[in-house]
Amino acid sequence: MSVRFELNDDGFLVTDLISVQAVDRSFFGREVDGKKIHLTLEPEEALYLIDVRNAECEKDGKAISFNQAAERFSKHRKFLARYYCYRDWRDRGLIPRFLDEAQGPYLKSPVEVYPSKAASFPNVKAKALFFDDDLMAVIDDEAAGERLFEDHWFGQWGTYKAKKHGQFLKLDAYEALFLAEHAGLKLNESAKHIQKEALKRRPDFLDLYRVYEDWRLRGYVLKTGFKFGTHFRLYFPGAKPSLQTGQWMHSKHVIHCFPRSTKMLISEWARAIRVAHGVKKTFILAIPGEPVKATAHSPLDFLLYHRKDGGIDTPRHDAPTYAMLALSEEEEIGGQELAEAIEASKKLGLDLMLSICDRETSITYYRVKRIELPKSTYEYYEIEWVQP
Amino acid sequence: MSVRFELNDDGFLVTDLISVQAVDRSFFGREVDGKKIHLTLEPEEALYLIDVRNAECEKDGKAISFNQAAERFSKHRKFLARYYCYRDWRDRGLIPRFLDEAQGPYLKSPVEVYPSKAASFPNVKAKALFFDDDLMAVIDDEAAGERLFEDHWFGQWGTYKAKKHGQFLKLDAYEALFLAEHAGLKLNESAKHIQKEALKRRPDFLDLYRVYEDWRLRGYVLKTGFKFGTHFRLYFPGAKPSLQTGQWMHSKHVIHCFPRSTKMLISEWARAIRVAHGVKKTFILAIPGEPVKATAHSPLDFLLYHRKDGGIDTPRHDAPTYAMLALSEEEEIGGQELAEAIEASKKLGLDLMLSICDRETSITYYRVKRIELPKSTYEYYEIEWVQP
Repeated sequence: MSVRFELNDDGFLVTDLISVQAVDRSFFGREVDGKKIHLTLEPEEALYLIDVRNAECEKDGKAISFNQAAERFSKHRKFLARYYCYRDWRDRGLIPRFLDEAQGPYLKSPVEVYPSKAASFPNVKAKALFFDDDLMAVIDDEAAGERLFEDHWFGQWGTYKAKKHGQFLKLDAYEALFLAEHAGLKLNESAKHIQKEALKRRPDFLDLYRVYEDWRLRGYVLKTGFKFGTHFRLYFPGAKPSLQTGQWMHSKHVIHCFPRSTKMLISEWARAIRVAHGVKKTFILAIPGEPVKATAHSPLDFLLYHRKDGGIDTPRHDAPTYAMLALSEEEEIGGQELAEAIEASKKLGLDLMLSICDRETSITYYRVKRIELPKSTYEYYEIEWVQP
Repeated sequence: MSVRFELNDDGFLVTDLISVQAVDRSFFGREVDGKKIHLTLEPEEALYLIDVRNAECEKDGKAISFNQAAERFSKHRKFLARYYCYRDWRDRGLIPRFLDEAQGPYLKSPVEVYPSKAASFPNVKAKALFFDDDLMAVIDDEAAGERLFEDHWFGQWGTYKAKKHGQFLKLDAYEALFLAEHAGLKLNESAKHIQKEALKRRPDFLDLYRVYEDWRLRGYVLKTGFKFGTHFRLYFPGAKPSLQTGQWMHSKHVIHCFPRSTKMLISEWARAIRVAHGVKKTFILAIPGEPVKATAHSPLDFLLYHRKDGGIDTPRHDAPTYAMLALSEEEEIGGQELAEAIEASKKLGLDLMLSICDRETSITYYRVKRIELPKSTYEYYEIEWVQP
């Protein structure tokens, strides 16, 4: 016999004993008044039972369909995305539960500490010519250009992957500005002029620059991530433009910035992560700007219980492993909103799992891991495409 | 002895006999007054000769550097991007020339004709519930849902890649609207309401819908391209949600829309093509809206001569193969601008080659091929990442 429950003005209620036991055994529902005589169901639970377990839902004594049960929620924010994300976790044989049951902090959100090495840069003894529309500068003093390239990997000397071809150093706007501020580089234009030109094209230029500067000052090398679909690619302290063997050095990380003030379609955001994944790079998300205060209302959707040796974690005996933020392909997400979700997960001591429901209700998972870059005041996260 | 030339108020001029001969032999420069006694050089040519061929440039009798020669152009639009795109073609041993030398039409821009099969859809005998914020609709009538999925591959029946799990049909906003307009689907909300909700999130929704509709009416199946970083993935007429063997059917094409009225950073645009390339799909660019009239001023940058058996094409004996539009990573491009460049290439009878200069002056090439979808009034192009 399949599970039965009813929909009344307060929501979904399970009353008959067999259904209560069946539902409770599978970790659906909540006790009413501290007793397991009746159980209430959240909408995601009720719809899952109808959709996948052939449960019967009644209203005013008559059986109703999925849509009749879902109708009153059809104007809710991301209702279907939440439902299909809930369902997908269930379909994996795993248990999702609700945020208000959280008992954290769970201490399950380890921080990845990146090395940090204070960097300093000698004064540049050459002048650069800045090209406004290209947002690039050229140093045509061969000796000065070659040193900046070989010692600190600023700009491109000669030709990409063929440095002996050509003899001038090409700097992008981040490099030009950084060298002007930290190595006394003189240009035909002021730092302010460069910023103004760059901001015309990219309103987020200063956010990107601050991320560039933050990692550069800690010994990292950042170059354009164009080939990998991101703002920067990243090399760890000590990187040189070519190995001693003369071979090209490969980056293993890319950085993409998502300023708090910007909004982006989830589909566009996911595209950047996909390119990085496709070329086997670790994707680092940078959230420049002041850390946020978490809002009172939780921006998170579900607590996710995962697996253990020989079985699955359950709310009875185990702690959750992730906090889920459910999103849909055509939704917009703001940098601020994402930062709040990350902050809320951190408070729970859980890693954030971004779950994206596409237009075919297929779910993609991105795990968000915290990074600590010592002495930096910004927030960085590794985003990993996972199949949980 | 290296080539010498001078920079005066009119531009770059080659006067000594040996330099004139050397420059002319390599297809640099233009005759003055129809005679090869003196040659003028375009800025890209002059800088290339300084940069790569160690040419000497003098001004007022004194040798000047690359930056001194380039300075007067530093405020020009995409000056460096043009220069490095010119240089890269030269560095490949190939010859770029200037647009005003075009003698077309060259008949080198073949059109790829896609099959077309008029499609019709029977009336849907079920009602769908639309979820505003998710921009999705559900049909919970099992028989009707299953038919729409199995016969025409609308929506997702059951679960993605596991259609027997679950029993309702999920439609995205394009499918819901299409079925409302072409198959009499009834929803709890009007087509107008759906459009209004979708436009809140995606100002380009109607452009995307028209592309969706255009291909659907010609027998193609379009589904979300989320996993491939594009708006749609595409199946040719006759496609079904699963092969007769029960295997999953793989798409080979993706479609991305670039409405004329929108602007996009080149880096963002290239990202979409990269994902498609990474998963080995043909990337189709859709430019919805009315065809443009080409402006009087050419939006193109160079004529590109390519290779032939046993050698290279030259302006002396051969026709160019492509028209180049040079762009830089941090530049914005508008749908209108791209459409104009394509239109101008078409008039020349050449395929367009988009050449993108990244922040390290490395050049990426995208070849644009025209597609004809019979009876469609829109423009579609295959964009192929090439190494010429």
